Amino acid sequence: MKIIIVGATGTIGQKVTADLEGEHDIIKVGTQSGDIQADITKPGSVKSLFKKVGSFDALVSAAGGGHFGPLKEMDSDDFQVGLNSKLAGQANLVLTGQHYINPKGSFTLISGILSDDPVYASANLAATNGAINSFVVAAARELENDVRINAVSPGVVEDSPEFFDAFPGHRPVEMDRVVRAFRKSVLGSISGEVIEVW
Amino acid sequence: MKIIIVGATGTIGQKVTADLEGEHDIIKVGTQSGDIQADITKPGSVKSLFKKVGSFDALVSAAGGGHFGPLKEMDSDDFQVGLNSKLAGQANLVLTGQHYINPKGSFTLISGILSDDPVYASANLAATNGAINSFVVAAARELENDVRINAVSPGVVEDSPEFFDAFPGHRPVEMDRVVRAFRKSVLGSISGEVIEVW
Repeated sequence: MKIIIVGATGTIGQKVTADLEGEHDIIKVGTQSGDIQADITKPGSVKSLFKKVGSFDALVSAAGGGHFGPLKEMDSDDFQVGLNSKLAGQANLVLTGQHYINPKGSFTLISGILSDDPVYASANLAATNGAINSFVVAAARELENDVRINAVSPGVVEDSPEFFDAFPGHRPVEMDRVVRAFRKSVLGSISGEVIEVW
Repeated sequence: MKIIIVGATGTIGQKVTADLEGEHDIIKVGTQSGDIQADITKPGSVKSLFKKVGSFDALVSAAGGGHFGPLKEMDSDDFQVGLNSKLAGQANLVLTGQHYINPKGSFTLISGILSDDPVYASANLAATNGAINSFVVAAARELENDVRINAVSPGVVEDSPEFFDAFPGHRPVEMDRVVRAFRKSVLGSISGEVIEVW
């Protein structure tokens, strides 16, 4: 299977890549790293990515960020960060990638627990994650040729101890569980699901 | 109570306005209509709105749109429509309005059923509504001085028969129920809730 992994060198992306690369033809994509460089916030860069890759069987995204900061200090520019990056960036991968993906292929995006269980300073990421979850449910009903789409929604992961203090009372999620969620989406048969790994 | 109603001349806004204006001091806001004109997609226009209004007790938004069209024809610009308008536009009202609202005041935004029960061609509005729902849950935990925030999430409403065909099997929602949901948010004591009117 030819699998594009966007954000392949990130905390989650590198573990997902390690899990899949023995068995599959992996194309690693990063902003400044990987086999191909692409900036998912720029539609032109995303188009260029797919033109280079051509047809493919699965796209995994563990890419995109948001603004993390208190609501009372948040302004319109801050709120755009998650919308432009994690939300529109990942949507761009689907909107353009749908024209290149093989029948029975799959898209797997990343959202996160903050949509449902927000912490202090997470209003932008909550909105971003909530949008991604609803997007995959809606998009799954329209993708043709048996193409599937899901989102993996992890809690704070054990490999990101720098975030633990911002998530009081949250139990860090084992990376193995997150990797298995991506594997379930890519190699399984589900579609339109938000796989919660909490 | 001094209540700002954004989108006061829209299908839903006019009914909410009619419900509240006998008892309260209403400031109607529209893009080109109402007591004050404001374009919620432009942060500068939103700032200007609050400078004109000054302090207030409640803000109701029944404003903002999204792109309605098949996923297979949707491009990055289409996807931005809901993000810029219904999502960032309403977030702008909260992010700026939080600095003008009186203690114990409230924000009431509008989302919609498509976040949870999407129809064909609704992927952009699904994402937009999902973001708004998660945003109010997160924001409710951070607003200070007992300020509240909720979202009203209506199904297709009886006053919009032009949308009925796009919502097969959906039962049109009585406007009276939608109006009561806004009233519950503005005059009640709830916060961080998505009031589903389906």
